[in-house]
Amino acid sequence: MLTPLLRAGRWARAGLVLVLLACSGGVQAEDGYALWMRYVPLADAAASSYRARLGTVAIAEQTPAQQAASAELARGLGGLLGRAPPMAASVTATTGLVVGTPRSSPAVARLRQALSGLGDEGYLIRNVQVDGRNVVMVAAQQDIGALYGVFHLLRLLQTGASLDGLALREVPQVRLRVLNHWDNLDRYVERGYAGSSLWDWQTLPEWRDPRYTDYARANASLGINGTVLNNVNASAISLTPAYLEKAAALADLFRPYGIRVYLSARFSAPIELGGLPTADPLDPGVQAWWRDKVAQIHALIPDFGGFLVKANSEGQPGPQDYGRSHADGANLLADALAPYDGVVMWRAFVYAHDVPDDRAKQAYSEFAGLDGQFRPNVIVQVKNGPIDFQPREPFHPLFGAMPRTPLMLELQITKEYLGFATHLVYLGSLFEEVLQTDTRGRGDGPNVARVVSSVADGHALSGMAGVANIGTDRNWSGSHFDQANWYAFGRMAWNPQQRARAIATDWAAMTFSPDPAVVEPIVGMMMGSREAAVNYMSPLGLHHLMARGHHYGPGPWVDGGPRADWTSVYYHRADHAGIGFDRTTRGSNAVSQYAPALAARYGDPARVPESLLLWFHHLPWEHRMRSGRSLWEALVGHYSQGVRQVQAMQDSWASLHDRIDPQRHQQVSAFLRIQHEEAQWWRDASVAYFQSLNGRPLPAGEAPPPHPLAYYQALQFPFAPGDGR
Amino acid sequence: MLTPLLRAGRWARAGLVLVLLACSGGVQAEDGYALWMRYVPLADAAASSYRARLGTVAIAEQTPAQQAASAELARGLGGLLGRAPPMAASVTATTGLVVGTPRSSPAVARLRQALSGLGDEGYLIRNVQVDGRNVVMVAAQQDIGALYGVFHLLRLLQTGASLDGLALREVPQVRLRVLNHWDNLDRYVERGYAGSSLWDWQTLPEWRDPRYTDYARANASLGINGTVLNNVNASAISLTPAYLEKAAALADLFRPYGIRVYLSARFSAPIELGGLPTADPLDPGVQAWWRDKVAQIHALIPDFGGFLVKANSEGQPGPQDYGRSHADGANLLADALAPYDGVVMWRAFVYAHDVPDDRAKQAYSEFAGLDGQFRPNVIVQVKNGPIDFQPREPFHPLFGAMPRTPLMLELQITKEYLGFATHLVYLGSLFEEVLQTDTRGRGDGPNVARVVSSVADGHALSGMAGVANIGTDRNWSGSHFDQANWYAFGRMAWNPQQRARAIATDWAAMTFSPDPAVVEPIVGMMMGSREAAVNYMSPLGLHHLMARGHHYGPGPWVDGGPRADWTSVYYHRADHAGIGFDRTTRGSNAVSQYAPALAARYGDPARVPESLLLWFHHLPWEHRMRSGRSLWEALVGHYSQGVRQVQAMQDSWASLHDRIDPQRHQQVSAFLRIQHEEAQWWRDASVAYFQSLNGRPLPAGEAPPPHPLAYYQALQFPFAPGDGR
Repeated sequence: MLTPLLRAGRWARAGLVLVLLACSGGVQAEDGYALWMRYVPLADAAASSYRARLGTVAIAEQTPAQQAASAELARGLGGLLGRAPPMAASVTATTGLVVGTPRSSPAVARLRQALSGLGDEGYLIRNVQVDGRNVVMVAAQQDIGALYGVFHLLRLLQTGASLDGLALREVPQVRLRVLNHWDNLDRYVERGYAGSSLWDWQTLPEWRDPRYTDYARANASLGINGTVLNNVNASAISLTPAYLEKAAALADLFRPYGIRVYLSARFSAPIELGGLPTADPLDPGVQAWWRDKVAQIHALIPDFGGFLVKANSEGQPGPQDYGRSHADGANLLADALAPYDGVVMWRAFVYAHDVPDDRAKQAYSEFAGLDGQFRPNVIVQVKNGPIDFQPREPFHPLFGAMPRTPLMLELQITKEYLGFATHLVYLGSLFEEVLQTDTRGRGDGPNVARVVSSVADGHALSGMAGVANIGTDRNWSGSHFDQANWYAFGRMAWNPQQRARAIATDWAAMTFSPDPAVVEPIVGMMMGSREAAVNYMSPLGLHHLMARGHHYGPGPWVDGGPRADWTSVYYHRADHAGIGFDRTTRGSNAVSQYAPALAARYGDPARVPESLLLWFHHLPWEHRMRSGRSLWEALVGHYSQGVRQVQAMQDSWASLHDRIDPQRHQQVSAFLRIQHEEAQWWRDASVAYFQSLNGRPLPAGEAPPPHPLAYYQALQFPFAPGDGR
Repeated sequence: MLTPLLRAGRWARAGLVLVLLACSGGVQAEDGYALWMRYVPLADAAASSYRARLGTVAIAEQTPAQQAASAELARGLGGLLGRAPPMAASVTATTGLVVGTPRSSPAVARLRQALSGLGDEGYLIRNVQVDGRNVVMVAAQQDIGALYGVFHLLRLLQTGASLDGLALREVPQVRLRVLNHWDNLDRYVERGYAGSSLWDWQTLPEWRDPRYTDYARANASLGINGTVLNNVNASAISLTPAYLEKAAALADLFRPYGIRVYLSARFSAPIELGGLPTADPLDPGVQAWWRDKVAQIHALIPDFGGFLVKANSEGQPGPQDYGRSHADGANLLADALAPYDGVVMWRAFVYAHDVPDDRAKQAYSEFAGLDGQFRPNVIVQVKNGPIDFQPREPFHPLFGAMPRTPLMLELQITKEYLGFATHLVYLGSLFEEVLQTDTRGRGDGPNVARVVSSVADGHALSGMAGVANIGTDRNWSGSHFDQANWYAFGRMAWNPQQRARAIATDWAAMTFSPDPAVVEPIVGMMMGSREAAVNYMSPLGLHHLMARGHHYGPGPWVDGGPRADWTSVYYHRADHAGIGFDRTTRGSNAVSQYAPALAARYGDPARVPESLLLWFHHLPWEHRMRSGRSLWEALVGHYSQGVRQVQAMQDSWASLHDRIDPQRHQQVSAFLRIQHEEAQWWRDASVAYFQSLNGRPLPAGEAPPPHPLAYYQALQFPFAPGDGR
């Protein structure tokens, strides 16, 4: 909570700050509040080497963004090096650090040629000679690029990198790097597992919690440049003047950190707030209402980012209520936003009223035909897979199907289907898996990363959205390891070609310790964790097997209710003879939504990756796997393997007992115990259920579930967190 | 968050702790987390004087409670004095501190005579000679008394008291000093304005957040010795094995701090959990179910405190569903708890199904006749006034009407009707007002404080309950000043005769600074704050004028709905001619529920305190007040006076700008701005409404409300915090 002190950017106070940070790093900060920006003192040798390299620091403090960069440097260098290097108008020692833009720094201005092409957000970090002095230069065209560069430089120090031979040039590959907060305005976060909403709407705009600024710092450290404040299941009240003033207060705090505020817009707001008889996108009164509303927002939030919309999905209003298309709806808002450089992020996660033959096909069916019909300031936001953030899904077929429309990848950082906050599951691997998938299936790209990057298809817009896992919990994300998922989202949104392991390595070094004896086992745990969860929850391409409503724990028996596609049996289709969803040409033919080479591979049980086998195929229990085992044997084996993988994580973590501070070690240990218990529960309940269908004996060596199936089916959890109200 | 480090009670670590605390006190702690236990370094002169007085410290560390006391001393003395005095088995320097019981300390054992009558929880602090050494002795019969004494000693240092001439002897005057958490198990706190519930039921019992221990420390520092974990509007699920294990984990953490865990019991649990056809208290199966349930709880929580019950009130099930009395219901549970020293706290806050002629009379009507019918381990919990925690009510008539039944005073610490967390309202004054009221009205007592004390009427049980204002907000209570209400409740529960001003003085010194230039203006703000709120919300005995449901803001026009006694017009009865609720013999005759002298005074408009005038009387607008003004003039004057009082608090606080750390000063300033705006809103809306009824001109000099009445009536706040779901 040093933010208020530091916000003024006064290096004169750095001495005091150093003492405090040293202390807080030693004990106080280890409640997780500091995230990956702990800035605890480096080992003496490293610190003095960096100090020698950064003799004087020259950074301007004229603009709010410059002040933010300067304050972060004071905090970071002060903490890491024991004391911050002296500050000067220019580098006066034989070595130094220069941070700036051509406008703020003569030394940077001389580099103008090298800055070409960096755009507003890019930066470079390199060693240069300035007046015979050996300088580390963090240079950018705009202040925000320099701030990003400062965070990058601090990361280099936190991870023990050399400051010699630097030739870093970073330009974000994605234009909109956005968090989606599923915030219901009453501080309840739908699918939130980290306490309540960060936004204290009741005390805004008067009280500006310093935590809002720390949130902005954390996002800026990753390059996240936008935040949607409220739930996609939106209340129109977020668009009333009182709530716009609250949003504007947050926008004021976020602006120095390069973060624009967006709002989820309820499509029927013209009726609910404006008293209009319709929300028809072709109605001139409706169009005027939105134009006026955007003008009103813009007067309060000059850099307002735009709207995110969930329409005609899960009961939300939308253009189809008036016989119009999603394009009509999106373009209505886009026209209102266009004068202000605002964008519409229109979600492709849609449901028909009628239960389809295969829900996996629905978004494609509704959107692929609209390609080319959207305004230039519309981007269609597509979830990573065609169902809904399952532990494993194939990539969404729309990513190969709308070349004339910019597509935004929506990832879920909060772990609705991956064990909530108490399961250690590193999502970097999941994100990488989808981003690296070749959309044509022939090995010659483009992969999904390229589709959602600005470089693809020449679109002006590009974007990645992450459904935030952030709340009021002291450690922000509900667990220490879930911070890594926020981190990985941000790093991959900046550059979707980055790899999960490298990101995990950075994160572990900054969050726990750069000591390889700490980093390596932690990265090992992280890199195996997602596959562990797939194994104990829904292996071999199974999906949507969780309990109803709250999604806590296994529910492969879920049946009945309002919609077949909200049940488990709809998805696994298991019976005495076999299991799996036939999406081949003989079944729902969802494979046809993919490029031909992929359709052929996915549609062939001999060629489809076994990790997606039952996503695309319905097979007999005795189906022979590549290992030679039967499908049933393999399935049970995966479930048990998942439990063992959690045990292995527990062992790794236990071995770090003396290298991790007690509070974080204890919490992670407790959560791993919960995860282990729940992994066993998933395994036992799932095995008991599927065995009740196929009547087969368990494979040799497999322990029978300790309870009868009825026991697992009877468990109820009315207070499981995150469920919609 | 130093708890984990300190829990071991190792003085060897005190050196490190000192550095950390010095730091955290300087900046980090000022987010309010440390409460009144900040232990920031004293001025040098004071510190060296105390250090000289406490040369060596002798304290045992054998039991968990002793370890808690030792850890608190290390933390407190280390922080306050810059370094903790050395630790030894006995005092070895010329001066010292001895803490213990006859069992833990030979020096204390010699004092055995003086310890007589202290009971389990009492302690004494005095100067004694031990082997020629000048020792400060904190002595008790039991460990928990010694822990309380340690907190008292630390308070002496925090407030700058002398350690010479000490002859303190403290015995709690109330046996059950209990917080009531209105926790719904889904982390939602009914009427909570401080984030979500502290209890993270989802991760219990595995994860034991260090914050639970800090909660216990804060309560022990006040002598609070019980906590009811869940809402009086109870879910039976709190009594299932899974939730009992979670409660047991909390009980384990609280035990060293002398805090017993209680649960709110749903009366119909035998039906909902046990599958019985009835919850009739006279049914043998029901009785057996509760006996078994209590045995099950006792096996998990050996010192389980007992049940709190809200029955046959606001829709809750209860014995009247079976034609039985409240005594039948309470005795059912009491019999089950009796073998384990457990108690039943049975609430007298009841509603009939039929709207009564006067809701103020209802609890008395239902309970007074039951006096003498309760088991010895039942205590009847009575709110401070006969309606519901209004800004001002007369004391509850039951406090003078049930001499054969122990009565527990229920106070609301969370400010449901007093502006939520953003209004600065010190409740010590409200608590004192009710506690000091003479129940007979003749000046010869007993006052309410005596009725609820163990000394009254020879009851074995006595108690005070406070509806907690605690949540996950970093500062615990939602605002810095609301911490004072938790504090005042605890201090008054220990000794209900204590005065609000003295308590405020201690709190301000510990929470902000012992500097009189800080304490005096803060205490001034606090002591005037409750009357300010009465003035701008409901002056002259008006009550229940808040908006419906969430109770946020004014709603004197509230009418209609399911029950007349849930409206405002039922209570103020204002029309063109006059205003007020006639509770005299000519009206509802609620005055007859009080002792004759009080009934006569309250029933006479010339003798009733003007602060309760409209509680007891319906009077014409031109009624002449003692000031000579008309009732209408006085009413408007009070409303405006309330707004001016908030302005005065803002001025006082602004004058402290340089004496308070920035973060707390900014938050309090922001909240005072909100309070001022809302005080003005209350005043304007109320004046507009009453003027619409009486058509009278505003008194000279009074500004007209800036909006028409319809504006205030149209305001809606669907996301106001704390409303029931």
